[in-house]
Parts: sequence; structure tokens; C-alpha cells
Amino acid sequence: TDLNLQLARTYVEDARDGRHSDFKLSERHLRLYHLYQNIWGQCLLYLVIALHLLLALFEKPAVPGLEITYWVTMLVEFGAICFYLFRLTLISVFTPLTRFWSDTKHMLIIILTVLTFLDMVIYIGLTESGHYGVRWSRALRPLFAVNFPEMRQIRRSFRNLRRTLPDVVNVLFLFFFSLAIFALMAYKLFGERGLVWVDGRPYFSNYWDSIFDLYVLVTTANNPDIMMPAFDESAYYVVFFVVFLVICYFIYMNIILAVIYNNYRKHLKNEVRKSVYSKRQQLSKAFEILAVSSGNKRVVTRGRFMQLMRTLNTKTNPALINVYWIVLDTDGSDVLDKGEFLRLADLLNVEVSEVVDRTTFMGHFFPRIYFSTPSSILRTIVKHKLFQVFFDVLTLINAVVIGLATSDSEWDDTAEWVFLSLFMLEIILKMYTFGLRRFFKKFWNVFDFFVIGAAFILGLAEAIADEEGKSRLTLDVLLVLRVLRLVKIVGSVQRFKVIVHTISKIVPSLLTYGAIMLVFYYMFAMVGMESFQGLVKFTGYDIEEGSELYCSNEALIHSPFWKDHYCNNNFNDVIHTFIVLFELTVVNQWHVIAYGYADVTDPWARFYFMLFHLVCVIVVLNIFTAFVLEVFILEY
Amino acid sequence: TDLNLQLARTYVEDARDGRHSDFKLSERHLRLYHLYQNIWGQCLLYLVIALHLLLALFEKPAVPGLEITYWVTMLVEFGAICFYLFRLTLISVFTPLTRFWSDTKHMLIIILTVLTFLDMVIYIGLTESGHYGVRWSRALRPLFAVNFPEMRQIRRSFRNLRRTLPDVVNVLFLFFFSLAIFALMAYKLFGERGLVWVDGRPYFSNYWDSIFDLYVLVTTANNPDIMMPAFDESAYYVVFFVVFLVICYFIYMNIILAVIYNNYRKHLKNEVRKSVYSKRQQLSKAFEILAVSSGNKRVVTRGRFMQLMRTLNTKTNPALINVYWIVLDTDGSDVLDKGEFLRLADLLNVEVSEVVDRTTFMGHFFPRIYFSTPSSILRTIVKHKLFQVFFDVLTLINAVVIGLATSDSEWDDTAEWVFLSLFMLEIILKMYTFGLRRFFKKFWNVFDFFVIGAAFILGLAEAIADEEGKSRLTLDVLLVLRVLRLVKIVGSVQRFKVIVHTISKIVPSLLTYGAIMLVFYYMFAMVGMESFQGLVKFTGYDIEEGSELYCSNEALIHSPFWKDHYCNNNFNDVIHTFIVLFELTVVNQWHVIAYGYADVTDPWARFYFMLFHLVCVIVVLNIFTAFVLEVFILEY
Ligand code: NA
Repeated sequence: TDLNLQLARTYVEDARDGRHSDFKLSERHLRLYHLYQNIWGQCLLYLVIALHLLLALFEKPAVPGLEITYWVTMLVEFGAICFYLFRLTLISVFTPLTRFWSDTKHMLIIILTVLTFLDMVIYIGLTESGHYGVRWSRALRPLFAVNFPEMRQIRRSFRNLRRTLPDVVNVLFLFFFSLAIFALMAYKLFGERGLVWVDGRPYFSNYWDSIFDLYVLVTTANNPDIMMPAFDESAYYVVFFVVFLVICYFIYMNIILAVIYNNYRKHLKNEVRKSVYSKRQQLSKAFEILAVSSGNKRVVTRGRFMQLMRTLNTKTNPALINVYWIVLDTDGSDVLDKGEFLRLADLLNVEVSEVVDRTTFMGHFFPRIYFSTPSSILRTIVKHKLFQVFFDVLTLINAVVIGLATSDSEWDDTAEWVFLSLFMLEIILKMYTFGLRRFFKKFWNVFDFFVIGAAFILGLAEAIADEEGKSRLTLDVLLVLRVLRLVKIVGSVQRFKVIVHTISKIVPSLLTYGAIMLVFYYMFAMVGMESFQGLVKFTGYDIEEGSELYCSNEALIHSPFWKDHYCNNNFNDVIHTFIVLFELTVVNQWHVIAYGYADVTDPWARFYFMLFHLVCVIVVLNIFTAFVLEVFILEY
Repeated sequence: TDLNLQLARTYVEDARDGRHSDFKLSERHLRLYHLYQNIWGQCLLYLVIALHLLLALFEKPAVPGLEITYWVTMLVEFGAICFYLFRLTLISVFTPLTRFWSDTKHMLIIILTVLTFLDMVIYIGLTESGHYGVRWSRALRPLFAVNFPEMRQIRRSFRNLRRTLPDVVNVLFLFFFSLAIFALMAYKLFGERGLVWVDGRPYFSNYWDSIFDLYVLVTTANNPDIMMPAFDESAYYVVFFVVFLVICYFIYMNIILAVIYNNYRKHLKNEVRKSVYSKRQQLSKAFEILAVSSGNKRVVTRGRFMQLMRTLNTKTNPALINVYWIVLDTDGSDVLDKGEFLRLADLLNVEVSEVVDRTTFMGHFFPRIYFSTPSSILRTIVKHKLFQVFFDVLTLINAVVIGLATSDSEWDDTAEWVFLSLFMLEIILKMYTFGLRRFFKKFWNVFDFFVIGAAFILGLAEAIADEEGKSRLTLDVLLVLRVLRLVKIVGSVQRFKVIVHTISKIVPSLLTYGAIMLVFYYMFAMVGMESFQGLVKFTGYDIEEGSELYCSNEALIHSPFWKDHYCNNNFNDVIHTFIVLFELTVVNQWHVIAYGYADVTDPWARFYFMLFHLVCVIVVLNIFTAFVLEVFILEY
């Protein structure tokens, strides 16, 4: 029947896309399920999530110039959450009831909704009655996104992270134990000697400071400063720091990576096994629905298979369906048994490059010109190896010209137009010779097209604009585009191709890790902004011209934070906060920032920075390294 | 015959120890071969190598107080090289001639000898005629050591390193290409804007500086300082640095690690395969010598096997030889065929814990006391779980006491003696109960014994010494020992045991990597000392008390090197040089040191530091990480 066909189609599609089918078996629920999976609905969800997260730009502390009264941002947030609830209601209708309520994802969304509404009410109450309110639920925003079924990939990475943790925790315990022992030793050895750091801070003068300073040393951020005061006393004391670094940095940090890598591999294998199993199960269901008895076994007939293929949401042409049939029906029995049918999902995931009309647009519509002798000669030239060599050499000359040009020189503007025109010509000739379809199939051509095209358009706009219209930003972008052009040489060097290929394999998953980072960044950013906003301000360092001293906070007098000119590393809006968090991810000098905010608040503020390092650097970045290692072993 | 037995013995021993037998087949040459392999001769070689390397302490620029006139150090070096040549001559006598001369190891030793003598002669000539001479051959010293057959393990790691390089070089090329592109972009974007670093240095003002500063950023050492001047101009510029760090730090550095890890695994597999093959070959040779024909196959008889076993240089008792026979003769035919014989080497490497007399010394000689009722009760108590718990708790209390004690307090000296006595009592009771043999079999007991024992002896010496005799160093060592005592708690926590076990597996190979590091350190140290000695001096930072300004070098005025109090990071003797190189290995702030030495010499001095980073950090440390990863996958 029709319902059966629709059911089978859904199972096959879900198996192909790696979704887990979960719906009540009726036509109405199936329709709702498809409505939920609708691509536009999903795009809208992504849009709402993005909007919801971007609210941080407009809320207090807002990016200068973007501040909006809190009623507006709250209304938007209310709308976003209503949309989440609408999606969730849809899920609750088509999902079997017990399955819906036993799913932690759904529970979490409901809890998050309640918490957010609660926070909103409290905030409105406090603000309207003239009190100071904190929008603490903002830190929970990314969790909404993560808990929607659409974010399968990110949730999988989170799951992997969560499962890796228990083993890592053991090593971390041992690590912190060693740290505590070394800190006690340092405190006892150096604490009462009246030594000071370069900035005048007492040296290992209490136990908690000793622990923090040695933790910073494990991140190498205060090496060798931490040992210089002791070193100046006696070279023997260096032994302490060398032993500490060998054990806690060179050995432990590698072991933490090894444990994470080891667990990552283990869980990856399990994930793959589970996903294969779930795929087989769904295809089995589809098979049971479609199959008829034939002799003593159940099979899918050719007609039924064709029906199924025609209902799939990716339209495939009849020729391709026939190919599928031939590939699947290995024994040529003209029916599919279960084993043959189960290979369908993998087959559908194979990218089929259909044989296309090889003639180009020009060849098709203006054959007289395209196939004329001059045109043929031209096409032969373009296809010749020397054509590419010529343009590679030109690119190198371009690099030298860029390097030599100064802002005073006039000749480089002319040179730039010559180069730009030549490169445009290269692109046009290649398009003409190979046709658009083949041209855009190569990554480096696409790269070229956009870099040169954008430079051309921006350059034209610049040339037309009068003196006042020339913006610094446009000029900078033009410059970047000009230099980026040089990158395409990579595409011409054979030995780089394997590496670039492997890197390109990493990029999609990089986005997943980027998303995980974003979740943590957002949560830490909200906490950081609520804690540190407005305490440190950037007003410039030109004291005579009126810049305020010590980032406008007296507590930063004598601090390296002020001496290193870090006033812009503040939590005054979400953009600055994200930049600070990125700096903390790169780790170096994080202790200067941590001590800066400890100076303007409380020594315990350092804990926020330490926790960020533990979560984002030690755990997430190591998992990323583990992922790169695994990709390389499989791909290289 | 006797020669045959000796030959077979040599093959078996070499197979067991993983050596590669290479000698002429005569009794005399075999004797020389054994003479060369003699353990005392090898110890002497290690001693001479150590002495040779330690000469750097006494040569100009010598460690203060250790300087010796160059005639003496040269005589010692001459002696060392004569000893090397003597060993080499020995090898040349017993090794087949063509094999000897085709071995690069031997060639290298001869070349190194010639170079060293040449350098010595030139140096004497220059010095005696009043010129300035450089002992450049000192940088080659560690290569002598590496090229002796005894240093198999280190040479294997070097080979692994060399084979890993070609693939890494491709990635490094791509990396440096990207660096060059980004540097061009930064130079163009920021170079002509009149920006300055915090220390007043112009910002991206020329191309080579841009490359160096961005290379430093890849090591994260000048993050976020490098972006602050641009960030202060506009937050948009941060995008440049974020993109740079994501590509060149987060992606490339992980890819370099992945490539190294991948190659390491590949070569490790080859090494293992080759070593198994070489073992089999040597055992095959031994078998062919010992075997007699029996029916249509060749076998080794029991009598011949017993003869062989008795000649092996590790004396094994007859009972054990019988066990070996039973294990090897799997088919019970009372002769060994080739397949059975080939398993001998692995069998000899299995550590056999012979069944020993379980009664303790006390139980053996004073059974009346040892087995009396009070003694039995005592032993039951010691074996009880609570006994261990009691002393663990005591250790924790000890930790708290150490933490609370100050140098003014008197009570902690008394407390220390109480704790020390109790811990001594624990050790004595355990020895009494378990016997010495079982006591010393446990790592943590040995650890305890030495830490407590040393503290006891040093403490007694301290107590006896009068006020003047008390040295700061002894007090410091006592303090360290006191805190080290707390480490043994690790041995009591179950969840730490697996990790500690794995770490202990890493330690032996850690020594190999330590040796590789030492080779590079020594070479870089000699070059560094010749280039930078005496340019920077530490005289303290108390200007009023007469300390010289700017590390006694005017060129360091305004430099972060001086502001960070890095005067002690100098190349004035080999100890200071090694400390600086260690700091460079930890990477952080290496650019401050590099710029410091560039200030006092030439901007190109930075190249020395960059090369050190490339070799010791990017290559050697990543190979170490690869090794740890592999150990963990195999062991955990
Ligand atoms: Na660093």
C-alpha cells in the first residue's frame, strides 16, 4: 500500500542520511515526521539558533553602537524559544510517547526553557524595581542548539568527549597530585627567602599562589621567568624546575594526549559499529515492508524497487536507478534478497558523477567559432603545460612586485592592473577552453575566480570612488586579496598535493570542533562578561593626549597587564570577550590576563582562567589533535 | 669441536642481546670479539665518552673555578681519541675486511678523528702565535659516541628520525610557504603605519622581521603581544591573526605531529621485522653448527644443547636448563629440530623468577623468636590492611605539618623527628615481616627506604653539625626529601597504578630520547658558546649596590631581555648554556632571548635560535610524543 511505500522510503532515507527514525506508524505521523525533516524548516531552525546566539551583540554589555533596550532582545529571545518549543511539540506528536519522554535531549530543552523564562521574569522584576539583575541563563543558550536532533554531528563529538573524560580524569588527578607536591616543595624552598618576581610580586609566598604559578608553568606561559629569581640565587635551583617540567610538562602532557587519543580511537570504533548496526536495522525494516514471499525466502521485486526509488526525496533519473538495480542484484536473479537490499544505503551515499555532455557552452551554441582553426590553436595553447608554467612564473613576479612596492610608489598601481588583467585573461581562457562545468570542478580555479574577481570588482570600485570615498578597509581587503593570489602556486607543486588533499579532508570536521569550541566559548563568555565587564577599559596609551592610566583601573598599577598594553583584552562586549578567549586558547601570556583580572577583582578570579584552560585546551584541543592523528593514519 | 661450540654460543648470545654478529671465523678472532664485547671494556668506553664530553666544563669558557689550561684538556681529549681508535682497531681486526670498510659508522669515527686532530693542531698554532683560536671540533664530540656499535639504541632512534624527515620536510615546506605569504600580508598591512611594539621596536617594518615574528607566533611565544598594536588600531585586524593561528598553529602543527607519528609507526614496524629476521638468522647459524643429521632432518641433541647452555655467559643452574629443554622440545622427541631451536633467544629473554626460600633471614636464623606468639601477632598486624591505612593517614598529617611549619617555628623540628622515627619503624617492621628480598622487590618500598634513609642520615649529620657547619644545600635537600615522602601515597591509590605502570614503561626509552637531546644540545651548546660567550653578564639587579646596567652590555638598553632580568640566560659556560637550551626547549619567551642575542651581535643570530627550535622542538619532541602515543596504544 501507499503507507507501506512511504514507510520504506522514510527508513531508506534515514539510513542514507544517518538519522535515527523514530515515529508512530500512521500516515498522519509520517507526514508530520517529513514536515519536521523538511530542509526549509531545518534552515529556519539554524537561523533562529544563530539569531538567538547573536543577541549577545545587542544586550548589555553590548558592542558599542549596537545596544538595544532589553525589552526588544527579550522579545526576540522569547520568539526563538517559542520556535524551539514548536519544533519540540512537533517531535512530541510524531514520536511514540514513552520514547519522547525518556529522551534526555527533550527533557533538557524543556528544563532550559523553564530556566530561561524564570531568568527573564526575575531580570524584569529586578530591573523594573531598580535593582541590578544578571541574565545568567544566557550562558545556557548554546545548549538549546546542541540538544536538537539536527545537531547529531556535534552531539556525537560531545559524546565522544564525555566518554573520554573518565580515563583522562585519572591522569589529571595524578597530575594535580604531583602539582600539589611540587608546589609544596617550591613554597618551602623559595617562599621565605624574600625573593620577588620581576614585577615585584612576592615569590612563592603562599601555597595557592605556588600551585597556580606552577600550573602556569605546565602551560609554559611563565617559563623561564618563574625560575629566574631562584636561578639568580643559585644555579642548583634550576634542577627543581627542570625536574618539574620534565615530569609535569614533557611526560604528563604527552600522556594526557595519549590517553585521549587512545580513548578517541576506541570510541570511534564503537560509534562506527553502532551507526552501521542502526543503518542495517532501518534497511531491514524497509525490506520487511517491501518484500514478498518467493519460494521459501522473502525478496523485493524489481517493480517494487523502482517504486521505492521514485519516492526518494533526491530525484534520480531512470538510468541511474537501473544502474543501482544492476549493482545490487549481484546474483542476477532479478529480485533482491535481504543481503542484497542492505547494501542500498551505502550505494546511495556513493557520489555518482553522471556522464555529462562534454561539449562546452561555446562549443554547443557557437560551434563555428569554437571549432575554428584559431580557436583550436588557442585551446591547444591553454591546455599546454607551459601555459600553466607561464602564469606560475607571473605569480612569482607578482609576489616580488608586491614585496618591493611601497605606499609612496606610483608604478605599482599600474603594475597591479597589468597583473590583474593578465590573471583575468587566464581565467577567461580557461573557462573558454574547458567549459564552465569543468572549470569550476577544480578547487584552485574556484579559488582563483573569487580572489581575482573580488579584487577586480573592488579595484574598479576604488578607482571610481573619489578621494573621500576610499576607505581604509577596502584598501586592506584589496591588499589581502592581492597577496592571497600567490597561494595558488601550492596547487601547482606536486609534492604539496597529498598534504593539501589530507588537509581538505580535515576541514569539514574542523567545523564540528569549531562548533564545540563555540559552545564552550559562549558559556565562558557570558560568565566572563557578567564578572569582568567594565573593570578594564582601553583608552589608548598616549598619556599626554589624555589616555587614562592603568586601563582606567588603579589596581593595575605595576601590573604586567598594564605594562604589556593589554587594556584591549577586556570583557566589555562579546567581540572583545571572544578575542580574549581566543588568546587564552593559544595559551601564551594567559597568566598575565588572569593576574590582571585577579588584581581588579579577587585572586580567585584566576580559577575562571584555569578552568577555561583545562576545558578548552587540555580536553578539546587534545581531542582535535587525536582526530587529526586518526585522519592521517587512515588517509595519508 | 670447541670452536664450533664457541661460535654457536656467540650467535646465541648476540641473538639474545639483539647484537649483530660480525666477525671472522677463527678462534683468535672470536676471542677478540668476546674481548670487545667484555662488559668492563664497554663500561670503560662509556666512562671515556663521559669524560670526553665533560671536558667542556673545564675548557674556555669554563665554569667559574674549573678552568684548566688548554694543554691538560687537550691531553685528555687526545687520550680519549686514542682509546676510541684502540676500540676501532679491535673491531677492524675481528671484522671481515670489506665489511669493516663499507660501514659508515667506522668511516665516520676515522673522519672525526682526523678533523679533531686537525682542529687541535690549528688551535695550538693559533694560540701559541698569539692569535684567537676556535675549537670548532668540540661540536663534533657527541658524534664519536653515537657511532660506536654499543650505542645501538640511540642510533636506532636517530635512524628513525632520519627516515621520518623526508615526509616531514614536505609539510615544513608548505608551512614555510604559508608563513612567507602571511608575512608578506602582515608586512604590507601593518608595516607602514608607524605602529610599534610595547618595547618601541617598529611593527612589521621589514619582511625578514615579519617572517621571524610570525614564526615566533607559531610557537605562541609572542601571543597576544604581536596583535595588540594592530588590535588597538582596529578589532578587524584580529581576524588576520586568528586566521594565521588557526592555519599555521592549530592545523599545521597538528599535521606535523600526525606525519611524524604516522612515519614513526611505519618505521617501527620495519625495525621490529628486521630485528626478528636478524635474530632468526643468527640462531639458524648456531643451529647449523650444532646440529647432526638424524634420519632425513638435522637436529640438536640434548647433550649438545646442555654443552651450549653451560658456555653462555649468564650462568644458569642445571634445573633451569632442564626447564628450557622441556619448554623447547615441544614434541617430546628428545631432540630439537630447527623450528624448536629458533625459539631459544626469546626464551632466554624471559625473566625467570626462580622459586626461592620463602623464609626470611630472621625466620631462618632465629626461628624461636620469629615464630613466637608476640612476633606472630606483630606480623599479622603489619600484614593487615589497616597498618597501611594508618601510615597513609600519617603521611597526610605529615603533609599538613610541613605546610603549616614556618622557618621561625620550633615545634616542627620535633614533629619531623617523630614522623621520621615512625616511618623508620614502618620500614623496619615491613622488613622484619616480609624479609629483605620481598621488601626490596616492591618499587615503593625501595623508594621509601632511600627517601627516609637519606633524610635520617642527613638529619643526624645536621643535628650533630654546629651552627657554622649547617649548609644551605643540606637543609634544602632535607626539605625536598621531606616533601618527597608524600609521593608514596600514589602507590596506595588503586586508580593511579595503571598510569604509573605505563609511565614506568616509558622511562627507559626516555633515556634514549634524553641521549638524542644531549647530542643536539652539545652541538648547539658548542656553537652557542663560541658565538655568544662573554657578551651578556649577570652581575645582579641591585643598581645601587653596584650591579652593572643592561647585563653589562649597552646594546640591551630598552630590550625586554634586560627588563625581564634574563642576564643569567647567557652562554658564558657550559652549565649556563645548557640551562638556556633547556629554556629554549620549553619554547616560551625564546624570542626574547633570541632578540637579546641579536641585539648584542647581529639580527641573523636569531637564525641559531630558530634552527634550534626546528630541530629540538618540532622534530625531536614530536618524535617523543609519537613514541608515547605508540607505547600507550600497546600498553594501556
Ligand atoms: Na608559550
